[in-house]
Amino acid sequence: MVKNPPALEQLIESLRCLPGVGPKSALRMAYHLLQRDRKGASGLALSLDHALQVLGHCTLCNNFSETSICPLCESEKRDISQLCVVEMPTDLMMMEQTQSYTGMYFVLMGRLSPLDGIGPKEINLDKLIKRAQDGMVNEVILATNYTVEGEATAHYISELLKTRGIAVSRIARGLPMGGEIEYVDSGTLSMALLGRKQL
Amino acid sequence: MVKNPPALEQLIESLRCLPGVGPKSALRMAYHLLQRDRKGASGLALSLDHALQVLGHCTLCNNFSETSICPLCESEKRDISQLCVVEMPTDLMMMEQTQSYTGMYFVLMGRLSPLDGIGPKEINLDKLIKRAQDGMVNEVILATNYTVEGEATAHYISELLKTRGIAVSRIARGLPMGGEIEYVDSGTLSMALLGRKQL
Repeated sequence: MVKNPPALEQLIESLRCLPGVGPKSALRMAYHLLQRDRKGASGLALSLDHALQVLGHCTLCNNFSETSICPLCESEKRDISQLCVVEMPTDLMMMEQTQSYTGMYFVLMGRLSPLDGIGPKEINLDKLIKRAQDGMVNEVILATNYTVEGEATAHYISELLKTRGIAVSRIARGLPMGGEIEYVDSGTLSMALLGRKQL
Repeated sequence: MVKNPPALEQLIESLRCLPGVGPKSALRMAYHLLQRDRKGASGLALSLDHALQVLGHCTLCNNFSETSICPLCESEKRDISQLCVVEMPTDLMMMEQTQSYTGMYFVLMGRLSPLDGIGPKEINLDKLIKRAQDGMVNEVILATNYTVEGEATAHYISELLKTRGIAVSRIARGLPMGGEIEYVDSGTLSMALLGRKQL
């Protein structure tokens, strides 16, 4: 039985730590890097090392940051009475793109997902509770996804915060912009009905 | 506009050198590595460095190897009069698994694909020609894939070798084991007809 050289086997094995990469993809990646993009490979090794060294979490919002407090949390233009809880840094960026929120953020870096071994500790809920009780925060806005896991996470957090007397809200659910009733799914429509507003 | 920390941006950019990884996958990989698998990430950086340092190509068969001549080429049990040309190291392994070939190999590390910028030089044809003319090789067996590119590569190599008076053969094409005429595609069937053998 012919085997790959040990260094190649080790590289293939290491590549499998990437999410969504199985044995076949890892093999293809290893061949590509070694045969066609050695420069990219050494760049990747450097970037990994650098990122692991300098990237930590902001002590306030828990987002990735190279400094102990990130630029957004340090900004004096933000409204410190509102705290918006999101799952991932990309969600934070989407919120910022709306340009309709000026408060602070807390990034969970995940969602409750017991089957994947992600419980309250993994999404830093202790840190969130502490942050929400700093005396400045008046309202916590839950902006986790409207998926099963995002909903469960929002419910869990709201229970935790309400018992501590903190005002909690959840972003609205309903028809999207440009949404047509004929084509929307019935779950969304029934939620839009339940969440109707007096005009 | 909120931005990711520079080290994170750089990591995302570096991950895009992997084949099949676009901006969204790169982002997901970066988050996963930094948040859930820092050990895997540093292991990957080490493996990349190590592989780039020690892995070269066997001077005889062009396969990846940590030594200048790979264990297979060094083996004294192989028949040095036959040289089998394959596209990738995985093809070599498949050939070995059949346990019906005992000759030597040459690994192209690719196939002719002008649109992807892969010409005769990128698949080391100079090295192959030199190898086939070492005075020991009696027959070159072309075992590239039966895809358009693999076929073109086989045709190109056979022309090169035949003008130099080297015997060249191509692995057979026909119905696969267990193949039923009713369900096989017509291209394969017509090739099986053309390639029929006197009994």
